[in-house]
Amino acid sequence: MTKRPLFDRVAIIGVGLIGSSLARAIRLHGLARHIVACDASRPARDKVKELKLADTIVADAGLAATGADLVVVCTPLSSYAAVGKAIGTRLRRGAILSDVGSVKHTAAAELGAHLAKGVHLVPGHPIAGTEHSGPAAGFAELFVGRWCILTPNAAASRAAVDKVATLWRRCGMKVETMDALHHDRVLAITSHVPHLIAYTIVNTVSDLESHTQAEVIKFAASGFRDFTRVAASDPVMWRDVFLNNREAVLEMMGRLYEDIALLQKAIRLGDGEMLHTVFTRARAIRRSIVQAKQA
Amino acid sequence: MTKRPLFDRVAIIGVGLIGSSLARAIRLHGLARHIVACDASRPARDKVKELKLADTIVADAGLAATGADLVVVCTPLSSYAAVGKAIGTRLRRGAILSDVGSVKHTAAAELGAHLAKGVHLVPGHPIAGTEHSGPAAGFAELFVGRWCILTPNAAASRAAVDKVATLWRRCGMKVETMDALHHDRVLAITSHVPHLIAYTIVNTVSDLESHTQAEVIKFAASGFRDFTRVAASDPVMWRDVFLNNREAVLEMMGRLYEDIALLQKAIRLGDGEMLHTVFTRARAIRRSIVQAKQA
Repeated sequence: MTKRPLFDRVAIIGVGLIGSSLARAIRLHGLARHIVACDASRPARDKVKELKLADTIVADAGLAATGADLVVVCTPLSSYAAVGKAIGTRLRRGAILSDVGSVKHTAAAELGAHLAKGVHLVPGHPIAGTEHSGPAAGFAELFVGRWCILTPNAAASRAAVDKVATLWRRCGMKVETMDALHHDRVLAITSHVPHLIAYTIVNTVSDLESHTQAEVIKFAASGFRDFTRVAASDPVMWRDVFLNNREAVLEMMGRLYEDIALLQKAIRLGDGEMLHTVFTRARAIRRSIVQAKQA
Repeated sequence: MTKRPLFDRVAIIGVGLIGSSLARAIRLHGLARHIVACDASRPARDKVKELKLADTIVADAGLAATGADLVVVCTPLSSYAAVGKAIGTRLRRGAILSDVGSVKHTAAAELGAHLAKGVHLVPGHPIAGTEHSGPAAGFAELFVGRWCILTPNAAASRAAVDKVATLWRRCGMKVETMDALHHDRVLAITSHVPHLIAYTIVNTVSDLESHTQAEVIKFAASGFRDFTRVAASDPVMWRDVFLNNREAVLEMMGRLYEDIALLQKAIRLGDGEMLHTVFTRARAIRRSIVQAKQA
């Protein structure tokens, strides 16, 4: 039984881990008649060609967007302004513009700035990833069982939002829509602040005396090991996340500081009861997450 | 080909995740003629009996230690003083006393306080674990491929240290000896501080407004999800770690604070170059750990 493809021509701008996984999933599930892959990097385009991930491969975003009924921007957030400008007037009436960025309020502003009339802006964030990057790191199953959050702007039609939701559902995701700023606050504490801490702790280690540092690497226990995996994620992507979600990240860091200070004081004072209470509470939250099947 | 058992009678005091895994590994590899399991908790003893993890099961540590040629203390650190007192004079000349605790300088002091003459004190720390606890959570393969650090006191004979090292090697571990205080400093940054941060961040979430909290749990992304796994570890064990390794943990927290403050300032100022440099450096450290095969 073959289903009619959801889209005629999908352009994927930026074929890193997410973009290349999306291309693979679209092909695997027959979601588009034609896949256009666009990347400014020559090695990335060569890899896409070698892996046969797309029907057409181009370097120019404006060219990629021309004639597409769906464009999904999968580049780092710092290129959104330029990409928005390059494709805004090339999109045809009725086309849908979406993305996969981790910060949504700036995505809408930058991708929407030059948008032609009648184009539907439906920003999205598939919450999925690994610590690896680049087109060779992608795989079609990356999205299965995970959440995708859509933050459509008010002018986007219900039909356009539904089509993007269907795309991600067919890739295996659960989909929900949300206000962009609310998304950014939730992700600040679930994802951005944890990454910031992980990066920091790994750097703190790299400043230790060299013989201690060598032993830290050698004996990397659970805890540090998990943190370093988080800290292995793409530096450009994460730089852009922090620059774009500054307010929410700084607010959540402020809250975290207060809580760390309390625990630190409990350690200094030898307050075992307080430590035990806090640790027990954390364990209960972990159970909620396991029950929500996100673990 | 059957090897002669390393030990005649091994007593394991405390049969939680580590103690019960050790009992399983000793039996699997035929490392002792007789295994004595000791636990103050009735449900734990019942579970050990049900799972047939030991030849003898007792509630009293002094009784367990009597006649053993190796005693391994696997209880939380807060019980070391009492356990040390209960078994110190019951150990026969030539016997070996070891443990598996995560902080080593206090282990040596408390277990050694009442030790009979001629008993060899060889504290150890198998760096292995999961977020689960209790005798049912253990498994013989827990130790395979991981490091075990021994911190023998000066009076322990070379032969006794070698025998404990052989025990862990036969369980699949790589073994190294180290000064107890140095061990505690290395583990403070690789394990104790990451756990403290993970516990804190999970608690910070539990203080958010309830609708945000529900969404945090629902959309728990990589980062937070990894942190909550770390924060699911046994609260009593971790309380004791922080109470026993106070100085090293507070020192490492101080260093971490400085580094977080720098990153936070970079975010506030929009200093993308600094963020990128720090994140790239962290990725390189991760690579060293992957190469050291501890990832």
